[in-house]
Amino acid sequence: MLNRLRRIVFGRALESYRLADEKLSVFWGLPVLSSDAISSVAYAVEEMLWILVPVIGAASFLWMPRVAGSIILLMIVLIFSYRQVVEAYPGGGGAYVVAHENMKPVYGLIAGSSLMVDYTLTVAVSICSGTAAITSAVPGLYDYRVVIAVIMIILVAVANTRGIRESSRVFSIPTYAFVLSVIALIIVGLAKHASGANLSMPDPALSSVSFGTEVVTIFLLMKAFSSGCAAVTGVEAISNAVPNFKDPAPHNAKIAYALLGIAVTICFGGVAYLARIYHAVPNPEFTVIAQITVDIFGRGAMFYFMQATTAIILIMAANTAFAGFPSLLSVIAKDRYVPRQFAMRGHRLNFNNGISILAIAALVLVIVFQADTHLLIPLYAIGVFSSFTLSQTGMVKHWMKLRPRGWKHRAFINGIGAVVTGMTVAVLAVTKFMDGAWMVLVIIPVLIMIMRGIKRHYVMIARQLDVPNKTLSEIDLMPQYKHHVIIPVDSLNAMTLKALRYARSMSDSVVAFHVETEPGEAEKLKDKWKKLNTDVTLVVRHTEFREVVGPLVQYIESKEHASQPGDIITILLPQFFVTKWWQNALHNNTSLFIANAMFSHRNVVLSVLPFYLEDYQEKIKQKEIDLQNEAGEHWQPPLT
Amino acid sequence: MLNRLRRIVFGRALESYRLADEKLSVFWGLPVLSSDAISSVAYAVEEMLWILVPVIGAASFLWMPRVAGSIILLMIVLIFSYRQVVEAYPGGGGAYVVAHENMKPVYGLIAGSSLMVDYTLTVAVSICSGTAAITSAVPGLYDYRVVIAVIMIILVAVANTRGIRESSRVFSIPTYAFVLSVIALIIVGLAKHASGANLSMPDPALSSVSFGTEVVTIFLLMKAFSSGCAAVTGVEAISNAVPNFKDPAPHNAKIAYALLGIAVTICFGGVAYLARIYHAVPNPEFTVIAQITVDIFGRGAMFYFMQATTAIILIMAANTAFAGFPSLLSVIAKDRYVPRQFAMRGHRLNFNNGISILAIAALVLVIVFQADTHLLIPLYAIGVFSSFTLSQTGMVKHWMKLRPRGWKHRAFINGIGAVVTGMTVAVLAVTKFMDGAWMVLVIIPVLIMIMRGIKRHYVMIARQLDVPNKTLSEIDLMPQYKHHVIIPVDSLNAMTLKALRYARSMSDSVVAFHVETEPGEAEKLKDKWKKLNTDVTLVVRHTEFREVVGPLVQYIESKEHASQPGDIITILLPQFFVTKWWQNALHNNTSLFIANAMFSHRNVVLSVLPFYLEDYQEKIKQKEIDLQNEAGEHWQPPLT
Repeated sequence: MLNRLRRIVFGRALESYRLADEKLSVFWGLPVLSSDAISSVAYAVEEMLWILVPVIGAASFLWMPRVAGSIILLMIVLIFSYRQVVEAYPGGGGAYVVAHENMKPVYGLIAGSSLMVDYTLTVAVSICSGTAAITSAVPGLYDYRVVIAVIMIILVAVANTRGIRESSRVFSIPTYAFVLSVIALIIVGLAKHASGANLSMPDPALSSVSFGTEVVTIFLLMKAFSSGCAAVTGVEAISNAVPNFKDPAPHNAKIAYALLGIAVTICFGGVAYLARIYHAVPNPEFTVIAQITVDIFGRGAMFYFMQATTAIILIMAANTAFAGFPSLLSVIAKDRYVPRQFAMRGHRLNFNNGISILAIAALVLVIVFQADTHLLIPLYAIGVFSSFTLSQTGMVKHWMKLRPRGWKHRAFINGIGAVVTGMTVAVLAVTKFMDGAWMVLVIIPVLIMIMRGIKRHYVMIARQLDVPNKTLSEIDLMPQYKHHVIIPVDSLNAMTLKALRYARSMSDSVVAFHVETEPGEAEKLKDKWKKLNTDVTLVVRHTEFREVVGPLVQYIESKEHASQPGDIITILLPQFFVTKWWQNALHNNTSLFIANAMFSHRNVVLSVLPFYLEDYQEKIKQKEIDLQNEAGEHWQPPLT
Repeated sequence: MLNRLRRIVFGRALESYRLADEKLSVFWGLPVLSSDAISSVAYAVEEMLWILVPVIGAASFLWMPRVAGSIILLMIVLIFSYRQVVEAYPGGGGAYVVAHENMKPVYGLIAGSSLMVDYTLTVAVSICSGTAAITSAVPGLYDYRVVIAVIMIILVAVANTRGIRESSRVFSIPTYAFVLSVIALIIVGLAKHASGANLSMPDPALSSVSFGTEVVTIFLLMKAFSSGCAAVTGVEAISNAVPNFKDPAPHNAKIAYALLGIAVTICFGGVAYLARIYHAVPNPEFTVIAQITVDIFGRGAMFYFMQATTAIILIMAANTAFAGFPSLLSVIAKDRYVPRQFAMRGHRLNFNNGISILAIAALVLVIVFQADTHLLIPLYAIGVFSSFTLSQTGMVKHWMKLRPRGWKHRAFINGIGAVVTGMTVAVLAVTKFMDGAWMVLVIIPVLIMIMRGIKRHYVMIARQLDVPNKTLSEIDLMPQYKHHVIIPVDSLNAMTLKALRYARSMSDSVVAFHVETEPGEAEKLKDKWKKLNTDVTLVVRHTEFREVVGPLVQYIESKEHASQPGDIITILLPQFFVTKWWQNALHNNTSLFIANAMFSHRNVVLSVLPFYLEDYQEKIKQKEIDLQNEAGEHWQPPLT
């Protein structure tokens, strides 16, 4: 039943060799991996206005395009830099891999944790902004924005556990629809403006802003720049996921980068210019892009279509993170800085553990920040730009180390990237510190500490488990010790007899151990035991405390069972299995307590000997039939 | 830490031989076992007035003493009947044992489930009434009555888990204080009335009742009688707990019964008479007994003392149930109608599981009925009187079967008891059916069904496990089958080597089993394996589904490991143990999934071979030292 439901929701399991099938062409891959960057159009312009308008009012529309222009320049520098990363690192992994390989491990960890934080924020910001697109179209839903955001995150996460290929097909068309809608908006908007149809009516909200106090400080422009930087996040996604492209993967990824640069420049630049000429004023309940669309197309079908495609591309942006984050974690997991489960592919060939972690983190953010994009923006971008800086610095070192043809030219491009992004980090940290950037500056070091702790643990275990290859042939694998078996016995029944037979098949030093909890009861057992045709001794201990585990532990610790140092003791627990869950409540689970107590004793092996009651055997037969039927559909039990 | 807290709250463990120490003298035993009956004074009179006053107004004070008189007669009949039960059944168990032994098992189950329901209601009603005593003294607490009731139930339950003796000491003095206070109240009240100090002012609440519509129907009187019957509940407690008395237990129990009869007659009769002459009118926020006390002593120290002792004896009544209910369950558990865990004594020699169940059930009732005694009363008493009837009928059969000296006389007394209580059941069921008695009439059959299901399960298991005594010597206990060991292997490390040694010490048919999840990886393992000086074969299977359990199950099911029907297979799981809980999250728990999958296969034994990392060994050493220190204080791990 549960398995059937699972299959319906998550799809049937895929074989490993299908991994090659799951590769993406540029046409399908671009929307999946670049929708983060493209969708930023929906909020980046608005966030810049949120900084400028309350302080300098109408003057914002003068300054905003200049700030937007510098952000586009920044992005172009980044795209050139990242095209070189793709070429040098066709294996993917982006900033983490580049920094980790070319610099000290800690820089890799800084890049990795920065990216983790930023993927999480990408999901949160995109989903919140997508929710704003929906509530702008249907104002009645504004009060339910947190619920809407939560549902969307869950849907995207589930869609991702179905696998890469399907995700791209599902989400690709709306991305293209969004880009085309924005281009249509820009063309019609410019035409309308040129024809004088737009009367440039002073907005009532805007007119309330005092025009007398216009002091355009450099700090204010830097702050607007910082908010606008959200538009550039997501550029790294393609470089992290190069192996997801069809061969030749690096070539396709470079084409995708060029297309991405063109799309963002047109959409972001265009919307920024439209916001200027249509005098959009930020409003939590009606987005800037919705205002512009209403101004240009009116509140008709085109308005609703625009809001719908905006919402969908923002969901896609969240989807980008759901593709990138688990992939990043799997790379880091191979270096043992995060639990190795993150490196395991699920039954649909994706990294389900990474998907789950990301979904949970994003849900927490959305709920804590009440689905308000504006509150999340100051946390955003600082992580991305930190990783940009490390990646570009790493690339400079890479070229300096390898020195291929034209390495100076290449190192220069990445050097420019490193300097520009490094400066951006400084600007972001200073201008946004009090608004929330401090949280990120706390979380990143904490994540690094955790990752180093995990690595230490894995190294410690590997050291203790490792057997040097050359000593293998010298190891004596025939047992040098004696093997004692202790069977805890409650009464003499069919289960006890089965245990005796089994124990004698593995050792000739077997002892049955009984704890007398009620006076006289042991005598009866002893009498029965005498009748048995066995050489196994029955040891009886008395307890005043009505419990079995303590005396058993004492017996093991004492020398009474004649073990020598180095000998091994097996505790053989006969255990019967019932068919219905409530029946377990009818039996005292002494075995469970014995098992728990045993694991605190060295060299005590715990063996569970199952005894199946008649109706349990029926159940097993049925289960085997079910399993065979399932196997036809490639079912397998979950591993992670 | 947790153990230390446990010891502070519940006291240190007691040895089994101390059971004899825990016996009660009449002086200490009477308050523990009869406070239920005595405390009923606090609400039984009031509940009769709740029925009468709204219908017949002042005429209530004419009829009420007659109804109260018939209830006292009923109680005297019961006490005579139960003194005979004590004599015939010194082992305790009361109605359940008597009915179960002398009639068909189902009558025992009816009696048992009736008693279970009524013990629960005793706790709920007594605690609610005790809360009413408190809120009558401090009206500001009226709104917090549910919270007060909940806290009191938890306190009584915890006190009971500390053991019988201590409970009696803690609670005995207030019981005597209550009885003496009530006697003082009666004496002063009668004297005041005789001296004419009581002006018999018509109560304003009473005068609002129309005097014209006085129609005293027989149904009304029966209904008042039913409500008053709450005073008689609790009479069976002594007979259930005979073994708790000091030797000679039956003799002491009979003395206790006589004293109980005298105390209830004086207190219940006296309060009923005072309610008549002082014209008390029921009021949810100010109890009848509080009204009478104010009339007689004024709102001074004596009033608060009376309310305090009333509250405390009602808590004692709940305590009676906490002594009786677990004891009853332990008797039923020995007949295997309820889970056997109810027959096990806790570390303070009491039946903790029964105490917990009772506390939970009472908490549910108190919360659902919002701590309102008046709403709970219709559910009460029907269970008790059902069990009375069955017990007395069983006693008649008992005398008829054994025919000791004077058996006719004895059978006659119990016969009277059976008839009187049987009639009371009929009256209760008819008059209270719509007010809530129907719930009890639904719950009792359900409980019986559950108990029969449990018995069936135990019988089924016993049948399958049982080995006839005479065949014991004929059983061949030397293994007739081959013993195969399969070691699931992930890589060749120190843990694998330990497992190989262990496996070879128990069988010469050992196979290492590896599942290749990434191409090429198995080749490396095979190369390493060749270097080993071992005769254990490495079997490699490839999977396309990135999981280990499925191929292992297939291998076990196939004949490849050369097992014959009847052979036994051991799956040996090397498992390492980490020191900190979070470290478990760093390892994929394939073992766990293997273990789960194995238990659905017959004759597969699961052995866990522990591998302790260095810091785990440190932890074990520390733990052993702790355990030894603890042992000095008789600590033992929990069993149930």
